[in-house]
Amino acid sequence: MLRPETARALGKASTATLTTQLFKRGFRNLFMQGVRPLGAPGRNLVGPAFTLRYIPAREDLDPIETYADPEHPQRKAIEIIPAGHVLVIDCRGDARAAAAGHILITRLSVRGAAGLVSDGGVRDSAAIAALGFPVFCAGPSAPLGLIAHHAAEFGVGIGCGGVAVLPGDVIVGDADGVVAIPAALADEVALDAAAQEEMEEFIQSRVAAGAKLPGTYPPNAETRASYEAWRQARTKE
Amino acid sequence: MLRPETARALGKASTATLTTQLFKRGFRNLFMQGVRPLGAPGRNLVGPAFTLRYIPAREDLDPIETYADPEHPQRKAIEIIPAGHVLVIDCRGDARAAAAGHILITRLSVRGAAGLVSDGGVRDSAAIAALGFPVFCAGPSAPLGLIAHHAAEFGVGIGCGGVAVLPGDVIVGDADGVVAIPAALADEVALDAAAQEEMEEFIQSRVAAGAKLPGTYPPNAETRASYEAWRQARTKE
Amino acid sequence: MLRPETARALGKASTATLTTQLFKRGFRNLFMQGVRPLGAPGRNLVGPAFTLRYIPAREDLDPIETYADPEHPQRKAIEIIPAGHVLVIDCRGDARAAAAGHILITRLSVRGAAGLVSDGGVRDSAAIAALGFPVFCAGPSAPLGLIAHHAAEFGVGIGCGGVAVLPGDVIVGDADGVVAIPAALADEVALDAAAQEEMEEFIQSRVAAGAKLPGTYPPNAETRASYEAWRQARTKE
Amino acid sequence: MLRPETARALGKASTATLTTQLFKRGFRNLFMQGVRPLGAPGRNLVGPAFTLRYIPAREDLDPIETYADPEHPQRKAIEIIPAGHVLVIDCRGDARAAAAGHILITRLSVRGAAGLVSDGGVRDSAAIAALGFPVFCAGPSAPLGLIAHHAAEFGVGIGCGGVAVLPGDVIVGDADGVVAIPAALADEVALDAAAQEEMEEFIQSRVAAGAKLPGTYPPNAETRASYEAWRQARTKE
Amino acid sequence: MLRPETARALGKASTATLTTQLFKRGFRNLFMQGVRPLGAPGRNLVGPAFTLRYIPAREDLDPIETYADPEHPQRKAIEIIPAGHVLVIDCRGDARAAAAGHILITRLSVRGAAGLVSDGGVRDSAAIAALGFPVFCAGPSAPLGLIAHHAAEFGVGIGCGGVAVLPGDVIVGDADGVVAIPAALADEVALDAAAQEEMEEFIQSRVAAGAKLPGTYPPNAETRASYEAWRQARTKE
Amino acid sequence: MLRPETARALGKASTATLTTQLFKRGFRNLFMQGVRPLGAPGRNLVGPAFTLRYIPAREDLDPIETYADPEHPQRKAIEIIPAGHVLVIDCRGDARAAAAGHILITRLSVRGAAGLVSDGGVRDSAAIAALGFPVFCAGPSAPLGLIAHHAAEFGVGIGCGGVAVLPGDVIVGDADGVVAIPAALADEVALDAAAQEEMEEFIQSRVAAGAKLPGTYPPNAETRASYEAWRQARTKE
Repeated sequence: MLRPETARALGKASTATLTTQLFKRGFRNLFMQGVRPLGAPGRNLVGPAFTLRYIPAREDLDPIETYADPEHPQRKAIEIIPAGHVLVIDCRGDARAAAAGHILITRLSVRGAAGLVSDGGVRDSAAIAALGFPVFCAGPSAPLGLIAHHAAEFGVGIGCGGVAVLPGDVIVGDADGVVAIPAALADEVALDAAAQEEMEEFIQSRVAAGAKLPGTYPPNAETRASYEAWRQARTKE
Repeated sequence: MLRPETARALGKASTATLTTQLFKRGFRNLFMQGVRPLGAPGRNLVGPAFTLRYIPAREDLDPIETYADPEHPQRKAIEIIPAGHVLVIDCRGDARAAAAGHILITRLSVRGAAGLVSDGGVRDSAAIAALGFPVFCAGPSAPLGLIAHHAAEFGVGIGCGGVAVLPGDVIVGDADGVVAIPAALADEVALDAAAQEEMEEFIQSRVAAGAKLPGTYPPNAETRASYEAWRQARTKE
Repeated sequence: MLRPETARALGKASTATLTTQLFKRGFRNLFMQGVRPLGAPGRNLVGPAFTLRYIPAREDLDPIETYADPEHPQRKAIEIIPAGHVLVIDCRGDARAAAAGHILITRLSVRGAAGLVSDGGVRDSAAIAALGFPVFCAGPSAPLGLIAHHAAEFGVGIGCGGVAVLPGDVIVGDADGVVAIPAALADEVALDAAAQEEMEEFIQSRVAAGAKLPGTYPPNAETRASYEAWRQARTKE
Repeated sequence: MLRPETARALGKASTATLTTQLFKRGFRNLFMQGVRPLGAPGRNLVGPAFTLRYIPAREDLDPIETYADPEHPQRKAIEIIPAGHVLVIDCRGDARAAAAGHILITRLSVRGAAGLVSDGGVRDSAAIAALGFPVFCAGPSAPLGLIAHHAAEFGVGIGCGGVAVLPGDVIVGDADGVVAIPAALADEVALDAAAQEEMEEFIQSRVAAGAKLPGTYPPNAETRASYEAWRQARTKE
Repeated sequence: MLRPETARALGKASTATLTTQLFKRGFRNLFMQGVRPLGAPGRNLVGPAFTLRYIPAREDLDPIETYADPEHPQRKAIEIIPAGHVLVIDCRGDARAAAAGHILITRLSVRGAAGLVSDGGVRDSAAIAALGFPVFCAGPSAPLGLIAHHAAEFGVGIGCGGVAVLPGDVIVGDADGVVAIPAALADEVALDAAAQEEMEEFIQSRVAAGAKLPGTYPPNAETRASYEAWRQARTKE
Repeated sequence: MLRPETARALGKASTATLTTQLFKRGFRNLFMQGVRPLGAPGRNLVGPAFTLRYIPAREDLDPIETYADPEHPQRKAIEIIPAGHVLVIDCRGDARAAAAGHILITRLSVRGAAGLVSDGGVRDSAAIAALGFPVFCAGPSAPLGLIAHHAAEFGVGIGCGGVAVLPGDVIVGDADGVVAIPAALADEVALDAAAQEEMEEFIQSRVAAGAKLPGTYPPNAETRASYEAWRQARTKE
């Protein structure tokens, strides 16, 4: 369960700050490689992962008629994903074909999903960008998924952009890309990220005003004291 | 020969729709990989392919003086490409150097070519984007072509972005990228693509209004009937 | 020493022109591969290289506390880079992590550096783009550098984007990317580039007006004569 | 169920012949890319696939103690794989670490498995080659799997070397590499492959004796008649 | 025309020596990347190039029946290649499928070709290695060529392993790989390579006996004098 | 300083065992990717690293005459490497050219170096394999180094195969490849590796005799007790 205050805090934290918090906890590989925002991201994408797994397509398993089956894992996943969740699709980093297109993403949006993340491509990229629905992927790719992907199952652990994603992991995306936070760590990471961001706002203002890096970034005792004073002054406002 | 009504229909069809039509006909590999619009594409690029083939450069064959030869295949191709055609350049996916630059693309534009497509780079990318001439390529790349490419011949079958392109194949490009339609299929693909797009416009409106995927996309008999009614109503307007 | 008039001339020359001038002098590999402007570049980046070299990170050498050391080569390099110089960071083409982020790049900007070039990623890409400071890199990448990079030394010959960069080489960047001009050649390349650009402005105007490529590009004696007349007429204005 | 006579026939057929038979049935992507025999293959590897799926490792999920869990999917898979089956491990083409090593492969061998196939690496490659147990992989790779792989589940559809592998698909490996035959096709493919190989043995003898390709390969009516005679003569022996 | 004494000299020269000779003449890119001997090479492969060009396959152009056409460029090339020539096949570096297999290579051998070179794969690799016919390629690959390659034409300039190959260029292959010597340079390169190899035999003996590199490799005046004495002594034997 | 007993122990330990020991100490990235033995390795390569760093070549810095300079970093490194050390050359993973060839490697051998490791290529691979001197690299590559590499400096921290290598780190190579052990850890890793290998010899014998994995590998208390008994019995012999 993603707590609302955690989601709120993560919505304000950059993926840069989050990967630093995760590094401090021993995690070095939670940022997806090769996965970028489609269109200009506004505020952060935040939500628990709902996973969908593709394997390579096979001609006999993947005729175009397969999409008419209501149990087709891609269609089913889109119909049952809980509101606020992020559909994360494992395309094995293969962007030769689309993980999804305009109509499916519209349906995701109508159903209240928080966004779509994939290490594959998406088709109808211009129409999708116009939807304003958060999509992170390997880039535009027109061919229908069936030339490369067979939807195998949903709700299982997957890889996406070289990162392990378990159902319920908290996905955060911004202009830099996408990070997958292990569910059990989301609350504390959100809290510490907020603190780090506030500290870095202070440091950034110091550096912009001419402060040298040593002693400022990372902060020494003196800078930390100044920060505390600044923070308390600000809180009173 | 590309019939005007076919060109018109293809100009309205997305490459996503076209690859679906081609998939239905058994083609799985007609969308160029790694070839993207340079600058924001407005309407579709459409035209028959005029092909140009590069092989790796060789120091003795490719001094800078080679460009003065009016028979140089790159220069010649640009001078003789028929109006409305798309110059498609096979760079073997090597984007370390430019397939063409500002002056050559200006000449292409003046000569009435429909656009330029290459799996190599282009130089002077900012100036070219300002021209408003449709260019699809692997991205900006400043070095002159001679560091990597020797222009070998034009008017032959080539590969571009991993796709076979024969002279006269119909090239269509949009925001997703570029598809090469075998010449003999252009008319029927254009016709069916128009029908598919109209159907999907209807489906998209249904999905945006809250329809579930099963029965809607792909459409079952009931949805097809509603579509027919919708289409006839619209036609009367 | 980069002479002011050389810097001025290079600031007006495109990297396309510069690579042509370097090709004429026997250089085929001075344009960085996979290094692109972050955000829209306005005018050219120009400045002498100040180099920084990363090697792969190692868990014992690269804990997060390492950044507190004022002798840490990354922090030190940023504190001592001379005004007007370009910080060029060798990330071995590995963009899985950031070469630098918002605060460090702000410090670079405050210190009067001309820009940052790296074949690695940068984090906080949206904030950096908002700074208006010239940054060229392999793309956004949120993870802190320590997951992939150990700052080894500065002020030595490095590779960046597959190009040799020695301290003092003149770095020029525009929308196409980045070229590294050997220091000893900067003056003459700047001079010849300016002449080439003026000539190509003339040729471009001719081609835009309908001139054929043969005789015009490259120019034959007649076109050269016309160019001289045009140039002198313009000079008189 | 893999019938014994089918297994026998597949054991004599080359993967080249099998991919031709599969191509004739419309399959273009059943040969694993980047998967090679470790050590010199003797006779063909043949057996039904028993699948094991890895996703990227995560520091909290994959400490070294995880291997002590008897339910660990890698260890469990090795303990329950039916005799005669091939363990096929999906490493997402990532060969930075080992899919398995000497002790596990020894256990596989003792349990009567037919072989191991993976698109990841294997460690202890010299010791494994000495076992004489058929192993096909991306090459030697010493690091233990936990630096890159988390064993997620077994007995599901996977990708391996870019190929879809379902449990029960028939795996055949020889010096060229590995092909995955859809279970339902194994009998007919085996039969036709045997016929093709016999025909090609005849053609090969003709070509070795100086026959031209046209009319011989592929065979025209006359060559087919000669083949029938040759085959019947041989059968009598 | 490749002169017999040139062929003889090239047959004794290593590709290492030949690329040094070519470097001295300004050529930096004549060694094929990713092309290796199949099986253990004995003596050098030497012969003029007979080129064959593949483009990506297309489902309508490349059914299996296409091979029955005696004008099929692959089959035709094999039937008409002059004795002593090397068939060089441009597969665009795509090794997902075979450039050729056992029967075709047997035919090449029977026809007196000197060898086969390709940057694609070959099928039936074990049988081919047993033929003893020189084959250099990207490695074993079982799928028939038609899944990836369409034979377009022969006798034209091609790329192979990133190198320009014109018909008649002299191909030399050894354990390191394959170099393509421009036809016009073959005689002088062969002569100088022989001289270099004799000199290096002397240097190697000196170094094996304990000589320091400075003054020995490259040789200074004194070492050159000793070499001349050694050479003359040897000639008298 | 590498102690003789440490060197002896490492000479018996596999790189698989060593990477496990390093993983237990928190190191996940000390095995070189893409670096393989040239020829069949007999016993392990073991020795402290002597590092040499290449950057991309530049035409003006890297004419063939550069090798005559006794201060050329490549030649100098080979002349001064201490006996028993391993020359580790950083080629940035670029195998288009040779890091070294037959004569230089002969000199290394004569000087008493323990071996050569590089993530680039080597030329004269057949002659080198015949030397019996341990060489690990990315594969054979005939072109002389100057087409791709400029020798920049020696005795500094480098990257090789994606791994940080500091001067004095202990290099161990076997059939699987090469691991770089941080100098300060060599003694304890050697000790624990020897213990692990003895334990695994016991486990392997158990597994070969039919023991199940659970309880055996990793060993539970009972297996550990049996191991102790086995070990003591063996020691008495």
